[in-house]
Amino acid sequence: MREDLLRRQTAPFRWDRVSVLEYKQDGSAPFLNVTRQVLFDEVELGCQLRYFEVAPGGHTTLERHEHVHAVVVVRGAGRCLLGTTVREVGPQDLVTVPARTWHQFRAGGPEPLGFLCMVNRERDRPELPGAEDLCALTTVPAVAAFLDAAED
Amino acid sequence: MREDLLRRQTAPFRWDRVSVLEYKQDGSAPFLNVTRQVLFDEVELGCQLRYFEVAPGGHTTLERHEHVHAVVVVRGAGRCLLGTTVREVGPQDLVTVPARTWHQFRAGGPEPLGFLCMVNRERDRPELPGAEDLCALTTVPAVAAFLDAAED
Repeated sequence: MREDLLRRQTAPFRWDRVSVLEYKQDGSAPFLNVTRQVLFDEVELGCQLRYFEVAPGGHTTLERHEHVHAVVVVRGAGRCLLGTTVREVGPQDLVTVPARTWHQFRAGGPEPLGFLCMVNRERDRPELPGAEDLCALTTVPAVAAFLDAAED
Repeated sequence: MREDLLRRQTAPFRWDRVSVLEYKQDGSAPFLNVTRQVLFDEVELGCQLRYFEVAPGGHTTLERHEHVHAVVVVRGAGRCLLGTTVREVGPQDLVTVPARTWHQFRAGGPEPLGFLCMVNRERDRPELPGAEDLCALTTVPAVAAFLDAAED
């Protein structure tokens, strides 16, 4: 058997032969304390499966895009913004991020928030919010509070 | 927010709005005590993410196919056959099932063996082993022992 066909967990949510990467290139978009690990990226699959981990107090980038995300929370808990709704998320919860929908994940509590994210291998680049987008989003008080809490 | 965008875990590895299905159509292939839940199946993704659960003593079908499986073990422990190799698997372990590779998962211990399986939405039908295939597989003692243990 090829050795790379079974990759064991070597520490919580760290794996043999899987590199812990920067979430995004430094400075390309605002985020705080997030790592990225690509678990599966076979061409034949057509999809990638990534594991993202947001440290306590951290958050992913607020962004939207044409492509869809399929998320399974697997570690810790937190909150997510999806469109103009803020929801609590915890272990095994399933989150679908539809096309063109603003979204952000924020860790809550003492443990990191970890989630699997399935995504098409061919996808558009994320769009960041402009001033008008932020203005529109923050007319919803719950979204304004969420984004304030998530500020660097 | 559309209500179906967040589907919460309602019991261990059971979700709101996710049906617990038969693993395969009854009688179509040999297996024992396996359920299937389709977590994500959006056309735009190109992939499906399914959750399979093998009850203690149960096993999936011994099969092979052209399409690739990307597996993340998320509950319990067990063993998997991959080609002519038998390996122990446990929580968060990552298993890649390449094209044309015989494979089977078998639960071990008192807890069900649960795993996520990512797969292309367009895929070929699995092939079951014929007498010659089984004969070839069981020339490897570890495989013979694994398959004996997995017999209904």
